[in-house]
Amino acid sequence: MKRWLHAASAASLVFFCSAAGADEGMWPFHGFPFDKVNTALKTHLDQAWLDRARLATVRLANCTGSFVSGQGLILTNHHCVEGCLAELSSKDKSYNDDGYLARTGAEEKRCQTQVADVLTQMEDITAKVNAATAGKADAALANEARKAALTQLEQACESGSQLKCQSVTLYEGGQYWLYKYKRYTDLRMVFAPEIAIGSFGGDPDNFQFPRWNLDMGVLRAYENDSPAKTPNYLKFNFAGPAAGQAVFVSGHPGSTDRQLTVAQLLGERNVDLPQWLLRYSELRGRYIQFAQVSAENERMVADQLNGIENSIKVRRKQLDALHDDALIARKTAEQQALEKAIAKDAKLKAATGNPWKDIEAAMEKEAALFQPYTFLENGAGFQGRLASFSRALVRGTAEREKPNTERFREYTDAALPRIEQQLGAAVPVYPEMEILRLGWGLERMREWLGPDHPVVRRLLAKESPEELARRLVTGSKLADPATRMALWKGGKAAVDASTDPMIQLWRSVDGDARAVRKSYEDSVEAPVRNATERIARARFAILGTSVYPDATFTLRLNWGTVQGWNENGTPVEPFTRLGRTFERATGADPFRIPDSWLKVKDKLDMNTPFNLSTNNDIVGGNSGSPLINDKGEIVGLMFDGNIHSISGSYWFDTVKNRSVAVHTAIIREALTKVYGADALMSELAR
Amino acid sequence: MKRWLHAASAASLVFFCSAAGADEGMWPFHGFPFDKVNTALKTHLDQAWLDRARLATVRLANCTGSFVSGQGLILTNHHCVEGCLAELSSKDKSYNDDGYLARTGAEEKRCQTQVADVLTQMEDITAKVNAATAGKADAALANEARKAALTQLEQACESGSQLKCQSVTLYEGGQYWLYKYKRYTDLRMVFAPEIAIGSFGGDPDNFQFPRWNLDMGVLRAYENDSPAKTPNYLKFNFAGPAAGQAVFVSGHPGSTDRQLTVAQLLGERNVDLPQWLLRYSELRGRYIQFAQVSAENERMVADQLNGIENSIKVRRKQLDALHDDALIARKTAEQQALEKAIAKDAKLKAATGNPWKDIEAAMEKEAALFQPYTFLENGAGFQGRLASFSRALVRGTAEREKPNTERFREYTDAALPRIEQQLGAAVPVYPEMEILRLGWGLERMREWLGPDHPVVRRLLAKESPEELARRLVTGSKLADPATRMALWKGGKAAVDASTDPMIQLWRSVDGDARAVRKSYEDSVEAPVRNATERIARARFAILGTSVYPDATFTLRLNWGTVQGWNENGTPVEPFTRLGRTFERATGADPFRIPDSWLKVKDKLDMNTPFNLSTNNDIVGGNSGSPLINDKGEIVGLMFDGNIHSISGSYWFDTVKNRSVAVHTAIIREALTKVYGADALMSELAR
Repeated sequence: MKRWLHAASAASLVFFCSAAGADEGMWPFHGFPFDKVNTALKTHLDQAWLDRARLATVRLANCTGSFVSGQGLILTNHHCVEGCLAELSSKDKSYNDDGYLARTGAEEKRCQTQVADVLTQMEDITAKVNAATAGKADAALANEARKAALTQLEQACESGSQLKCQSVTLYEGGQYWLYKYKRYTDLRMVFAPEIAIGSFGGDPDNFQFPRWNLDMGVLRAYENDSPAKTPNYLKFNFAGPAAGQAVFVSGHPGSTDRQLTVAQLLGERNVDLPQWLLRYSELRGRYIQFAQVSAENERMVADQLNGIENSIKVRRKQLDALHDDALIARKTAEQQALEKAIAKDAKLKAATGNPWKDIEAAMEKEAALFQPYTFLENGAGFQGRLASFSRALVRGTAEREKPNTERFREYTDAALPRIEQQLGAAVPVYPEMEILRLGWGLERMREWLGPDHPVVRRLLAKESPEELARRLVTGSKLADPATRMALWKGGKAAVDASTDPMIQLWRSVDGDARAVRKSYEDSVEAPVRNATERIARARFAILGTSVYPDATFTLRLNWGTVQGWNENGTPVEPFTRLGRTFERATGADPFRIPDSWLKVKDKLDMNTPFNLSTNNDIVGGNSGSPLINDKGEIVGLMFDGNIHSISGSYWFDTVKNRSVAVHTAIIREALTKVYGADALMSELAR
Repeated sequence: MKRWLHAASAASLVFFCSAAGADEGMWPFHGFPFDKVNTALKTHLDQAWLDRARLATVRLANCTGSFVSGQGLILTNHHCVEGCLAELSSKDKSYNDDGYLARTGAEEKRCQTQVADVLTQMEDITAKVNAATAGKADAALANEARKAALTQLEQACESGSQLKCQSVTLYEGGQYWLYKYKRYTDLRMVFAPEIAIGSFGGDPDNFQFPRWNLDMGVLRAYENDSPAKTPNYLKFNFAGPAAGQAVFVSGHPGSTDRQLTVAQLLGERNVDLPQWLLRYSELRGRYIQFAQVSAENERMVADQLNGIENSIKVRRKQLDALHDDALIARKTAEQQALEKAIAKDAKLKAATGNPWKDIEAAMEKEAALFQPYTFLENGAGFQGRLASFSRALVRGTAEREKPNTERFREYTDAALPRIEQQLGAAVPVYPEMEILRLGWGLERMREWLGPDHPVVRRLLAKESPEELARRLVTGSKLADPATRMALWKGGKAAVDASTDPMIQLWRSVDGDARAVRKSYEDSVEAPVRNATERIARARFAILGTSVYPDATFTLRLNWGTVQGWNENGTPVEPFTRLGRTFERATGADPFRIPDSWLKVKDKLDMNTPFNLSTNNDIVGGNSGSPLINDKGEIVGLMFDGNIHSISGSYWFDTVKNRSVAVHTAIIREALTKVYGADALMSELAR
């Protein structure tokens, strides 16, 4: 954001000065500001350093990871593999509770729905996309033309290539890129500690620091049933970094809303966040109570509950951030400063129009569409795995009949392999949980859309939400991957002929869902995109690309230093140490130290650094990212931020926003002294 | 609010004009604006009408009711007696499910924790209270002196009298009154329909109109084991009111925040409401899932779940109202208009100071105290009946040792009989629900105060919240009323010697809870009260008492007419009719019509008016209030408002805020044709 300071008027200085000194920014690898960084940190990063970091970083389905050996070994977080551990577990064996260590290749079991993408090439397609929409005054038509162009460019890219091609929208439509990935679809579990230490402190300690978490998990990428050859990997530095040392995070921040307009932020504050929090707080309660019925129920629900609790904490603090009127005032001032700068240039002013007003108008339309869109089309009403399968089958087979560029973007040819992987995966489906989730979704749909909404009225004419959910779940065969794949391969005809009650459910609502989606896309998404593109172009005209784009779960690099912060007058040190973990343990979850550690307590070096904090600018999606020193070595494993980091959705607070990593020293201590993972350790240390 | 229009500057007109035409206001019976009302409605209300309405209206523990016969019969809502029906029920018989009809006096069973208060006298004690605080510059000391004065005045009032005396704070401290009640403590159940029709539509239809609810319940007040003689009662008018007819509601609106400052409203928006909604949405989920385990669990939890869902809807819409920046702008402008009017009078300005700034400062202090106060002192951490008993026993016996004026206000001599009634009541205590609630409270206390808070650390050093809750609940004998009364009578010595684990729990936290209460009262409550008194005095100086005070669960009267409203261009008629109920039923709860109605469907007049809407200004606490015509007859039974009525917490929206009542015609139709309640019917028609 530094260049903004030079370009903008003095009046705006006051609103940007807090960002001026920041090691801020989630930079795409095609726009990394080497000079600025090397000057600020006295480092010597070059293109080769950057390329290696990029090729060693992988994007997982929900996280980041990095290659840490030449044989496909991937380091990520425990919470990134928790879902896979749950899928591999059974009534008699919980890998989340007990941990996982494959001592041989044969013991490395596959995570059926996991993927790992390595970003190999990046192509700027902004001009091509703009050409497709040029002259289309109607925002809805332009929106459709843009999507068709993106699909076509992806299709052309993948044709005759082994690479996965995905278009990326940066700067809210200011730039379009084609990112090309090498994709690994065979990922196997190598190591995970017990969740008791992997997530020591559980939800209470989440987004807190000081912290003591061995939040690590190790996967291995396979190709043709053999470990993948991955020459671009990061070496471990088990000494870790010193306080004040320059460190870099390569990873995939999921999403930020730093460039949203004030109207959009108020929409999040007034509508999206409160509704989501109400719904998921209730689900949290249902899950907790469900888990109390039996140990088996507890196991079934554990990883989903952890995920929900994490999301609740994030959104709760996001809402706090948006309730801080100083934030809204800052955003308003920024917006006004940009408007003012645009107004000075008559041509720019004419080209830009008043996008903020246009967005406000679209937000008013969204108010009426938000609930039906959320419940009918966006998944809130039809919860659970079976409902997802049903939707993918009904929608996917219908969309497949259309030409590629006319489909919904999530069913283009480029997207189908991933859908097939998910439909075909032999993941467990627990009927009681399915009934809980589907019944909950239907009940809340009735609450928010009202009992007289036509879809609600039709579905719940004679049954309660729970009764309907029970009938559909117990009557459906979609839990069986073979059944799903038969329908998928049979196409629209097979799906149309199916008497599976879950398929019937989605067939009966698909039309309504498509209709509300169409309204939403035409009257909200299209004008907003049109307006944000104009804002982005105006911003480029004034600032160039010296500002970074909002996070989009695509690869970014940022920099910072190892440091703590000052919490209400009390300095927080950037390192924690092993000894305090034992002092803090209570014996009861989530403050229980596993037996494996208690048994070897006497052999452990209590002074071992455990977690550390840095001022790198990361958000959710960066989980599992490597923390890299200027030599390109791994010195930590990102897994969290402090509580102030959650406001990072809207701005970067240089004073208090800190990221949190697992120290490499505790990884060595654990692998060698606790887990006796000698083969893994020697592969890492190679 | 009309006088404000004349007194305030033209600039403020724009902000008050929406209220100008309103039949607005919750008027105390000692300040009812006869002339204004009679002129506006062309009625002839006089003091005798008012006295009769007052003496026929009763305040229940959580609702309003009215005498409807000379033998102590009280009409109120089903949802006001739902708790009593649950207490009277057992595993084999659910009176909420099946309804209740006492055909003889012997079948009228007692509601053990219910009371009914009739307001017989009102005395203005403002001068006395102000004399007690006069000259006390320190707000905390003044706060204590004020409480002592109120206790003393109540004590003097009750001494040698059979009346219950309660002080009432009106206008946020602008007036103090002593209200004197005749109290009935022996209330017995006479009639309630099945909840399926008493709350037809359940939570989905709550705060909705059109609506079809027979939300009625009938109690009888007893004295000396015989029906009470209640010559001041309201006669039924079974024809009900016509559209446009003048109607009045006498009852006890619970609380409104219409006079809060902007800083206080933002505190509700940013802190109180989001936190409450998060916590209770989770509890809702826990209850729903708990209920799924068995029919018996469902019965145990039903009335509490209904209450929570009602509260969630209220607070959700309150948050929506506060997220409407137009509301905050209006409140800001009102505040500024008052400040401006004060500034014109130098003496008034000097006496008033800047109370808004003082409140802002207190709100900042509250931010740090809110969570510990909420969890330790205000009940959030220690949930459930057993925890409440424990607290009342430990606190109450300790407070009783002090002189009356030095006690917490809830343990003064005037308050003790009600506490004894509750401690001695043989209400059911369900261990599994107690564990659920206490475990939930402890777990959330750890979440919000953090695992390192000293109290959290002490309580949960070796046990999980659920383990601790289970141990305390299963080990406690406080479910037994005799055990509780023995401790209560044994006093502090008995409580100190008790080894009951639930008593031990509260003994161990009482000191912490008292400490945070003291901080809260001195640094938040005291300066806020001091500042709001100054605002109230300034407002009186400018406006007189032509404005009504915020609701305080004391007796108020308001007026209006039978009318619908316009919902986004669609007119909503003020009456619903029986026939539509059958069309709307699905057969599944909460849209199930009970068998008793289905059996006699052919005999029912489908054109019978069912519910109606009026523009009376009511809120929660008014439930069960009589809707009275200008002749003093009952023409309806208030039980709800439309969705727009919830914003009534902060302002009265004359355009859309409507209250909802049961029509007297459906009461006759039900009692005669469905329930064959001939004796009750003839008592009502007498």
